[in-house]
Amino acid sequence: MQRFPNILLDGYRNFMSGRYADARDRYKALAEHGQNPSTLVIACSDSRAAPELIFDAGPGELFVIRNVANMVPPYEPDGHFHATSAALEFAVQALKVTDIVVMGHGRCGGIRAALDPSAEPLSPGDFIGRWMSLVRPAAEQIGANDVMTPAERQTALERVSIRNSIENLRTFPEIKALEDAGKIALHGAWFDISTGELWVMDAETRDFIRPDV
Amino acid sequence: MQRFPNILLDGYRNFMSGRYADARDRYKALAEHGQNPSTLVIACSDSRAAPELIFDAGPGELFVIRNVANMVPPYEPDGHFHATSAALEFAVQALKVTDIVVMGHGRCGGIRAALDPSAEPLSPGDFIGRWMSLVRPAAEQIGANDVMTPAERQTALERVSIRNSIENLRTFPEIKALEDAGKIALHGAWFDISTGELWVMDAETRDFIRPDV
Amino acid sequence: MQRFPNILLDGYRNFMSGRYADARDRYKALAEHGQNPSTLVIACSDSRAAPELIFDAGPGELFVIRNVANMVPPYEPDGHFHATSAALEFAVQALKVTDIVVMGHGRCGGIRAALDPSAEPLSPGDFIGRWMSLVRPAAEQIGANDVMTPAERQTALERVSIRNSIENLRTFPEIKALEDAGKIALHGAWFDISTGELWVMDAETRDFIRPDV
Amino acid sequence: MQRFPNILLDGYRNFMSGRYADARDRYKALAEHGQNPSTLVIACSDSRAAPELIFDAGPGELFVIRNVANMVPPYEPDGHFHATSAALEFAVQALKVTDIVVMGHGRCGGIRAALDPSAEPLSPGDFIGRWMSLVRPAAEQIGANDVMTPAERQTALERVSIRNSIENLRTFPEIKALEDAGKIALHGAWFDISTGELWVMDAETRDFIRPDV
Repeated sequence: MQRFPNILLDGYRNFMSGRYADARDRYKALAEHGQNPSTLVIACSDSRAAPELIFDAGPGELFVIRNVANMVPPYEPDGHFHATSAALEFAVQALKVTDIVVMGHGRCGGIRAALDPSAEPLSPGDFIGRWMSLVRPAAEQIGANDVMTPAERQTALERVSIRNSIENLRTFPEIKALEDAGKIALHGAWFDISTGELWVMDAETRDFIRPDV
Repeated sequence: MQRFPNILLDGYRNFMSGRYADARDRYKALAEHGQNPSTLVIACSDSRAAPELIFDAGPGELFVIRNVANMVPPYEPDGHFHATSAALEFAVQALKVTDIVVMGHGRCGGIRAALDPSAEPLSPGDFIGRWMSLVRPAAEQIGANDVMTPAERQTALERVSIRNSIENLRTFPEIKALEDAGKIALHGAWFDISTGELWVMDAETRDFIRPDV
Repeated sequence: MQRFPNILLDGYRNFMSGRYADARDRYKALAEHGQNPSTLVIACSDSRAAPELIFDAGPGELFVIRNVANMVPPYEPDGHFHATSAALEFAVQALKVTDIVVMGHGRCGGIRAALDPSAEPLSPGDFIGRWMSLVRPAAEQIGANDVMTPAERQTALERVSIRNSIENLRTFPEIKALEDAGKIALHGAWFDISTGELWVMDAETRDFIRPDV
Repeated sequence: MQRFPNILLDGYRNFMSGRYADARDRYKALAEHGQNPSTLVIACSDSRAAPELIFDAGPGELFVIRNVANMVPPYEPDGHFHATSAALEFAVQALKVTDIVVMGHGRCGGIRAALDPSAEPLSPGDFIGRWMSLVRPAAEQIGANDVMTPAERQTALERVSIRNSIENLRTFPEIKALEDAGKIALHGAWFDISTGELWVMDAETRDFIRPDV
């Protein structure tokens, strides 16, 4: 048979003899009683930005959506398939999470593509082009800025995009109502792959700052 | 200010003093040279089934899509927002991954919802209902079986859904062509939260079996 | 004379110099005082699923019925010859066993035949066809499922059939009365020939799970 | 949950660490390629007469029917459930065994019941009474003999019953034809629980003699 990747089997062996062995009872209980995470993290598919690593989270702690550039589309109850909106609905309505974190990161390939006006579609379907159009107005404005460096423009759009997704979260009537009632809190975070620094969004100023850790 | 969840800040502190400290150079190199993962994992948003934990994967190893019930919709180049298809396109066309793993797991809440004909929409948008309709024909067939137990029906649909997603991957012309050319391999896996067992799909019989680990 | 199979004579020699020599007194006592097993096992005739091997049982421990696919027919006091019902009656009424185990196994040829709608009778008497009709409704329902693999359908019916036999045990008035009085317990078990795994039926959910051994 | 008998779980543990560990590859091969036993043994359900113990047989060697008093009913293609005839048909037509052994034993409870004219039915269904009527003419004749001791009468009927079952085997047209063609051989054996002695039936004289072991 076609072989399952060895690197994954090796890793699984490590898991079983390490973390799983230590948390056997926790996994059993999570299977029996179900999951009950209080936090939803919307993170990027990027291999360098796994929230479980960055937040040192164990089984049962984080409900996680991962897509390119950790984005939330606006509320579109149009009967199409919506991977992100479906997971949002499940986290908020079924699991009743109390915190939603939109976590971006530096050197994001999706954001880089959005900033590149000469980028060719990756395939005839151009799914990335369409997906990144979620930040098009901001990308066009920042991309046209010729006094910031490319790295500055990239970091700027990464952070603008996080704020944009948080605004889109509020277009979901149920999330808006829960936030207004003080039952759910929306957060932004940005992880610097190069230095390991975590920046979190100040809810009032909407600036990204280093938390006191 | 509205406080960023303490549990995440605590976890981040552990990360910085632990795994990051050990892998500082690796993160720096990954920032400088970019990511180059060979594997895309499509996993569930479930808090108990993070692929980085189960495969003991470090930074840069796995490009990860996470949505409810780890599903892949069929190819639909219709100009709508497609979180999953966009991430697929990015992984296959830009990162040129050589392996795609669809990883399901036991006790999946999305699959349970799909099997429950009396399930009410979670919200007026009914995003979960629409999303889970991706496995509707199989869910109806298995759901109508009254000689298997609920848990047996659930495990059956979890595995059928993985095969279904793998078939949907093949509706993407680029993935189909790469697979035919032997340049990409599609895998299925199913993780048993209760026991920690990993089952992988035999590429020929499409049965799930325990790998010799 | 027509020769008794050498392989059996050789095995008998091993028995006499091995296990019998070790258990000579036990056999003598069992002859003198009679048998007094507490457990009846209903197992398959399959050469790969002998309960004495799987449960490492010595002389006097297990009263054993073996037929194709380890099945129990429903109570039929019709005056015909009933090999299985007669042995059941003897175990329950004369030996007063306290536990009855219906033990199925993977790759069961009888179950495979039951799932194959195109199977021809093995002989004009079609005894197997008639015998396997004991699980016909379940076989038809599972056999018609075209989203599960053949191996998945087979395992499903093997387990359904065990539950079916346990239900049939309860159609025997004496067994039902003893179970209601807490004097006899009915169990299900399923042995995986390929891996050696034993799965036992949870009495409440009726699911098959791995016991903590 | 209702607990699976501990004695069986303990025995299973011994099996896994002992015989299974030694025969892991054999079990795997038997699962993959199917069973191919050359011998069918029709033995008694008695806990003291397991053919796998007496013939020191490993997995895959013996296809086994076990019922009370190791009996074969005559050919009755009447559409009823026939546990023994179904297993016979499977062994002969599907597995194409070359040897059938009817193995009786001393101190058989079923034979004792058949010899006791004052025996009450064990239950209103009287399945044992009906089943043991398979040897009624011989039982009545031997039971009426008042010069043999009870033990002599019992051994006599145990051996007569084995010959009777072998005659019944020949009422199955397919078995008769195979035996006439020299493709299958029918054997009798009698095991003395008290001494461990095996007696086999001489095919010509039909006497039970000690084989040269």
